[in-house]
Amino acid sequence: MHSFTDLVSSFEERFTASLPFPSSPDTLYDPCRYLLALGGKRIRPVLCLMANELFDEINEDAWHAAFGIELMHNFTLIHDDIMDKAPLRRGQPTLHAKYGLTAGILCGDVMNSYACDEIANIKHSLPQALKLFNKTAIEICEGQQMDMDFERRNDVSIDEYIRMITLKTSVLLACALRMGAIVGGALGDNANKLYEFGKNLGIAFQLQDDYLDAFGKTEQSGKKNGGDIIANKKTYLLLKAIENAGAAQCKEIEGLLGQDGTGKINHMLSLYEATGADKACRDAVAKYSQIAFGCLEDVAIPSKRKQPLFELADYLLMREK
Amino acid sequence: MHSFTDLVSSFEERFTASLPFPSSPDTLYDPCRYLLALGGKRIRPVLCLMANELFDEINEDAWHAAFGIELMHNFTLIHDDIMDKAPLRRGQPTLHAKYGLTAGILCGDVMNSYACDEIANIKHSLPQALKLFNKTAIEICEGQQMDMDFERRNDVSIDEYIRMITLKTSVLLACALRMGAIVGGALGDNANKLYEFGKNLGIAFQLQDDYLDAFGKTEQSGKKNGGDIIANKKTYLLLKAIENAGAAQCKEIEGLLGQDGTGKINHMLSLYEATGADKACRDAVAKYSQIAFGCLEDVAIPSKRKQPLFELADYLLMREK
Repeated sequence: MHSFTDLVSSFEERFTASLPFPSSPDTLYDPCRYLLALGGKRIRPVLCLMANELFDEINEDAWHAAFGIELMHNFTLIHDDIMDKAPLRRGQPTLHAKYGLTAGILCGDVMNSYACDEIANIKHSLPQALKLFNKTAIEICEGQQMDMDFERRNDVSIDEYIRMITLKTSVLLACALRMGAIVGGALGDNANKLYEFGKNLGIAFQLQDDYLDAFGKTEQSGKKNGGDIIANKKTYLLLKAIENAGAAQCKEIEGLLGQDGTGKINHMLSLYEATGADKACRDAVAKYSQIAFGCLEDVAIPSKRKQPLFELADYLLMREK
Repeated sequence: MHSFTDLVSSFEERFTASLPFPSSPDTLYDPCRYLLALGGKRIRPVLCLMANELFDEINEDAWHAAFGIELMHNFTLIHDDIMDKAPLRRGQPTLHAKYGLTAGILCGDVMNSYACDEIANIKHSLPQALKLFNKTAIEICEGQQMDMDFERRNDVSIDEYIRMITLKTSVLLACALRMGAIVGGALGDNANKLYEFGKNLGIAFQLQDDYLDAFGKTEQSGKKNGGDIIANKKTYLLLKAIENAGAAQCKEIEGLLGQDGTGKINHMLSLYEATGADKACRDAVAKYSQIAFGCLEDVAIPSKRKQPLFELADYLLMREK
């Protein structure tokens, strides 16, 4: 069995060597190469490879699936950055900020097609792999649309929020695991359990991300704390605080949402604590983590083979052993 | 054998009945439905169905291919309209003009995934169908990027222009025909000939479009004449005029390109005539048409079965019998 670190190195090496972009038109492919060279944690392709290795040695189909999933992920980042008007990605200018809107749209589109073309190389269970991939791609669009809609809405429920992050973030983790499993010849029930493991892991990870943005130390989250509060982002914490708030606290929250700047961070944090939103968020992280780990335990494969997946999940959820 | 009109009606009926969009999020799917309801000539899906019917009765795979190709075409229209800052499509507001940039990007993306998912339903020769579809999608992006690049370049050659329209427009016609053929069990050579028929038909059609925009009567082109001249669009006519122009004519053309408004149309038209660009364009339409018809004749199928394809090509190229 390969560790996370091993698989990231192997993935980087193979991915860079097999990038399918031709040289021309360079106005289309240079930006694609730029974006992919920014790197990333490669969580999704590694999940796919690990799921594949549960069932046998990692096969060629799993590599195609891993490439396709990583390309798809990067395509969505390109288009999301346009919609979010984001200037930076991994500390560097976003693709559209550097190359313009047209490049942003077209590079995303072409990367999407290259992603599909990697999936098309799969030999074992191709129709199932395709259906899973397309369904996931559609769900990611739906999740991004919900996220955009939430910016303009004031009545977002916690359930809707969980649904949104599931579609926008978690289903791709789940897809990566299931795809690795099915091209490894997994039986239906194992593939389902791995899908549910990825989905719940993704939800727990995103809720933890919300929490760390507010309460984490800067080293942990890698971002400046309170960014979501400054941006009035409808996170789990804010939605829960609104849900739990009494009339006076509600007014305070509304007042803070009307303010600009960093001055409001501490006040909002104290409201998160006063309403119990902080604890509710920690509890929700624990709940979804528990479901995730339970699903992984249920996969009918000797525990030893699952070790890398447990370790990766622990790492993502910053659980210390 | 079914005629163009028959196939358009059948396609409309089936396409509308089987549109796969769910109701929610309506902010994503209402704009998709809006765009598809604007209609269109449905040339590409009908080419696919006709190519399929050359080999036997139209089968389910061909319908999936036709749906996928039409969805793909509409996805590219949505994103192209954003890049071209186009306010109108088929006389109605473009999707992004009506629903905004975010909807424009996401509706295009999701329609692309639904297109892929239709192709994924194909049973016969699925891997070949996928490879063809993805290659075509990539080429369309390359063509659109070249078109965008041409706006800022002053050294575009006729060869580059032909390459651009081939990628941007013709390969999808060619793909439609080849896909219909391969899911109909066509042998390689027949599928290749049909692909070349579509590719050359598309080039001829686009060059004719350039010609009619300048010299056509308004009823023929459906657009106001001289639009390309006003927009300084690098058409075959303009590129050929520049190529053929003497020093004095070159200066005149440059002067006109620096002018705004409709006043320059007649002067430019006379320069197209004086440089022989008009005749060169008509000759090029004739040349590519001839190649197209030659390829269709070479398909090893009784002529009678090819009649609907010949008629559709005649209609597109406005050739009177």
